Amino acid sequence: MVGPIKIGFVSRQQPESIRLAQMLIYQIESEGKGVTIFVDEDLALKIGREGTPVAEMERQLVDFIVSVGGDGTILRTIHKMADPAPILGINMGTLGFLVDVEPKDAVETLSRLLAGFDVDARSRLKLLLNGVCLPRATNEIAFLTASPAKMIEFEIIVDGALMEDFRADGVIIATSTGSTAYAMSAGGPIVDPRVDAIVLVPMAPFKLSSRPWVIPGDSVIEVRLKLPDKEALVVVDGQTSMVISSKDTVVISKAKTPARFVKVGREGFYAKVKSKLT
Amino acid sequence: MVGPIKIGFVSRQQPESIRLAQMLIYQIESEGKGVTIFVDEDLALKIGREGTPVAEMERQLVDFIVSVGGDGTILRTIHKMADPAPILGINMGTLGFLVDVEPKDAVETLSRLLAGFDVDARSRLKLLLNGVCLPRATNEIAFLTASPAKMIEFEIIVDGALMEDFRADGVIIATSTGSTAYAMSAGGPIVDPRVDAIVLVPMAPFKLSSRPWVIPGDSVIEVRLKLPDKEALVVVDGQTSMVISSKDTVVISKAKTPARFVKVGREGFYAKVKSKLT
Amino acid sequence: MVGPIKIGFVSRQQPESIRLAQMLIYQIESEGKGVTIFVDEDLALKIGREGTPVAEMERQLVDFIVSVGGDGTILRTIHKMADPAPILGINMGTLGFLVDVEPKDAVETLSRLLAGFDVDARSRLKLLLNGVCLPRATNEIAFLTASPAKMIEFEIIVDGALMEDFRADGVIIATSTGSTAYAMSAGGPIVDPRVDAIVLVPMAPFKLSSRPWVIPGDSVIEVRLKLPDKEALVVVDGQTSMVISSKDTVVISKAKTPARFVKVGREGFYAKVKSKLT
Amino acid sequence: MVGPIKIGFVSRQQPESIRLAQMLIYQIESEGKGVTIFVDEDLALKIGREGTPVAEMERQLVDFIVSVGGDGTILRTIHKMADPAPILGINMGTLGFLVDVEPKDAVETLSRLLAGFDVDARSRLKLLLNGVCLPRATNEIAFLTASPAKMIEFEIIVDGALMEDFRADGVIIATSTGSTAYAMSAGGPIVDPRVDAIVLVPMAPFKLSSRPWVIPGDSVIEVRLKLPDKEALVVVDGQTSMVISSKDTVVISKAKTPARFVKVGREGFYAKVKSKLT
Repeated sequence: MVGPIKIGFVSRQQPESIRLAQMLIYQIESEGKGVTIFVDEDLALKIGREGTPVAEMERQLVDFIVSVGGDGTILRTIHKMADPAPILGINMGTLGFLVDVEPKDAVETLSRLLAGFDVDARSRLKLLLNGVCLPRATNEIAFLTASPAKMIEFEIIVDGALMEDFRADGVIIATSTGSTAYAMSAGGPIVDPRVDAIVLVPMAPFKLSSRPWVIPGDSVIEVRLKLPDKEALVVVDGQTSMVISSKDTVVISKAKTPARFVKVGREGFYAKVKSKLT
Repeated sequence: MVGPIKIGFVSRQQPESIRLAQMLIYQIESEGKGVTIFVDEDLALKIGREGTPVAEMERQLVDFIVSVGGDGTILRTIHKMADPAPILGINMGTLGFLVDVEPKDAVETLSRLLAGFDVDARSRLKLLLNGVCLPRATNEIAFLTASPAKMIEFEIIVDGALMEDFRADGVIIATSTGSTAYAMSAGGPIVDPRVDAIVLVPMAPFKLSSRPWVIPGDSVIEVRLKLPDKEALVVVDGQTSMVISSKDTVVISKAKTPARFVKVGREGFYAKVKSKLT
Repeated sequence: MVGPIKIGFVSRQQPESIRLAQMLIYQIESEGKGVTIFVDEDLALKIGREGTPVAEMERQLVDFIVSVGGDGTILRTIHKMADPAPILGINMGTLGFLVDVEPKDAVETLSRLLAGFDVDARSRLKLLLNGVCLPRATNEIAFLTASPAKMIEFEIIVDGALMEDFRADGVIIATSTGSTAYAMSAGGPIVDPRVDAIVLVPMAPFKLSSRPWVIPGDSVIEVRLKLPDKEALVVVDGQTSMVISSKDTVVISKAKTPARFVKVGREGFYAKVKSKLT
Repeated sequence: MVGPIKIGFVSRQQPESIRLAQMLIYQIESEGKGVTIFVDEDLALKIGREGTPVAEMERQLVDFIVSVGGDGTILRTIHKMADPAPILGINMGTLGFLVDVEPKDAVETLSRLLAGFDVDARSRLKLLLNGVCLPRATNEIAFLTASPAKMIEFEIIVDGALMEDFRADGVIIATSTGSTAYAMSAGGPIVDPRVDAIVLVPMAPFKLSSRPWVIPGDSVIEVRLKLPDKEALVVVDGQTSMVISSKDTVVISKAKTPARFVKVGREGFYAKVKSKLT
């Protein structure tokens, strides 16, 4: 890497994660290689340092951000950036696909990556709700009935053509990256992240012949609620939640800026599926 | 039938259904066979008659109750009775399995049934929430995460043994009758109503090897939430909804009194599946 | 147990299994408790003893038969008996549901069971092919297209009523016991063996709304091929295979005699599912 | 179109199809526009014309080939060409996705297309078996156990990395075009043909966590049988069948030449799914 290295740190609000983050920061600083460290405000409070918002880390062009926690920690961090800095996920006990490094390997891996690293760019989804942009989705945008156990009627229009209309508990619209997250629990296929595609998975559909769909990654998807008196929740990456009704205009397309992940490198996608899904 | 016949009437709150109910009542009364008619309060208001609560119809030992509407109308009506009177469902545009008579056949069918009819008894499920009984379920009891798109951890104990613990959006516990309703959308099997069984279907389970279960109809099922800070909604037959947490005790077993349906008779269960599910 | 104990032995044709069988026989005989041992002919050949056909063990009313191998070994052994003696399965490396004892526990378990044991009776299915009885099925009867990748059209008649007609690669008709075997791979539910039921699972059905069925255990099922020029294979418990065509009459019902298994006792069905399916 | 138009004709061996083919040929010739007609040998025999092999039609650079029959007729015709001429499918009673024209619209559609038409190119799969090329697959290549109801163990290597190893009845490797054919019956997703992808669907997999996969369209896939004593059938587009064992080398990749279909134009892919799958 050219120039002084800048690393950001975020952590799950949980003693173990915070301790590990603190230890990694100490490790880097004690090596005395002139790495500049930024610490997210929540973490900063806990370990007595000055805090830097993630958005400011983005402006400072950090080389990457170390996330200590689970997939949720990573997804929330990415939501705070318009053109996300690469993420390095340290896995604190979850089974997520976004966390690449086991705690016991964290020191060594981090040390190695300071000498240089590659980045894996992953498409995100942009949702315009009445023209206003919600946080880009790294994994998926889920539309769920706001009245539990009462189905909702959707119309999905892709590139101007009616793809499907169905009654269901909801529908998940996922990136290839998100195909192994929520979409998979709902019955979707495993999509290799190299495939430029979007996955749509109906949830508990009334019509038994409904199937998951895989459509082009650059599709423009419109989601419409058909009944005027029903509401749906929109949940982005399991984090942000809003209520919509049949009056709202919802348009989903590929985001201009991808999520980025530091390549830890040893194992590919298939090996990861094998280790996580068995 | 011995003695004077008593018929109850309930209807969906929708002009067409109300008109049909009114027409059927007129038809019976004009035949002058001394049939006593009870009309549920909501319907009574609309057609200018004296209203009788469904629970009072039960006490009056009505021969059966005509429900004009969909499965929801029937399920709500049954919920109001401890030992439910038989139901005759007139189908107003839904695809439900509980409605047996098409509007165009209603007059003729009703006329025929006044001369005598058989009853189909269907097991219901009783839910004790901290020892208090909720309305018996004719179709199913659904446990759904109260935080949309956030999984909840369940433990299912059957007859004292741990059946399964899983992370999922929810779990559906259905009667054989309910196997072709919500449980089926969630991926459950079609269970012949003659099988004395309970069906459990995990919804969007995290563990990909999860499968629907079919267990004995007289099982005692305990549902536990594992995490102290998470809540679930309990929804009975898509109608009643309550919030529970890990502190609550939830025990499900076969109800002492079944739901009853007037046998319309021409077609059996398989023919009904064929006509509804194709 | 009253009277002198009689134990049969069968084994998979594989050195490890034969060695373990031999060791168990030696163990019993060296304890000198007057147990009479019968050894199946294939095993007898390998270990230099006199052989006894399984059917003869049945006539000799053996207390139980020790099967060293996998589920296949057990299923084949049961096929040889009209009113099967109880089976004790020693598990040689498979993931089957019928094998209950791990090799390391075999000596101790066997020793314990010689002092007394309970039996678990499991319904079997009888298939009459043009009135002739094939081996009873402990797990399932599978009907598979005889022309790979070419669908076949089936008609399933249950108790005289058309249950379903479908185009598919095949259909599996399984006992509750067999629900966790082939039927499960094809998408069927887990059926508690206490439920008196038969499971039907279509294989790769053309009609996307097809679902697995659970019907009463005492149903009489007729399977018909609809096209005169197509043939299907009938495979019982993965062992016996016959070809049928649209001219053949196939009737399936509950067998009069069940399969029997020695209860090893420590763990129930749910715990077994948990350990095998995770 | 430039120059004299050349049209080929093939037909299913069934009176209705042959009659329609004959009628369409008569129609074109009676219009006297100098269209040259080639008739496949089987059809030629039935209608008393001179026959031309499909491969010769390809060499003659026919503008397109009219196929009267079902998807099978089309798939067999494409198999006979190295660089397939465009196909126009007249639908004789099947539910296939490749047949675009209903018999009642055939005359008018054909007449219209003689004035000009667009072509839809669809990727095919090439299978090298020990270095020898089998017919390219328009829909799918299926690997099926040669011993019905006995699972086979596969290893799938994609671009040199182990994707998955599994025990199953078989595995389907399909194009996007084939995603709505056999792969769908086996549980695969609907893949928009614009997505450059290959779908892998395990059939009745032993491991319950197995899922369908969607991988890049330019992947190089190696399929290996793991056990030396087991055989599998390779079936290309439901037509060609060969036996392979663990000694054989099987490599699948995108074919250089696509299948081509005459665009009939009125309805898109989503409308077709809607009309075929409901």
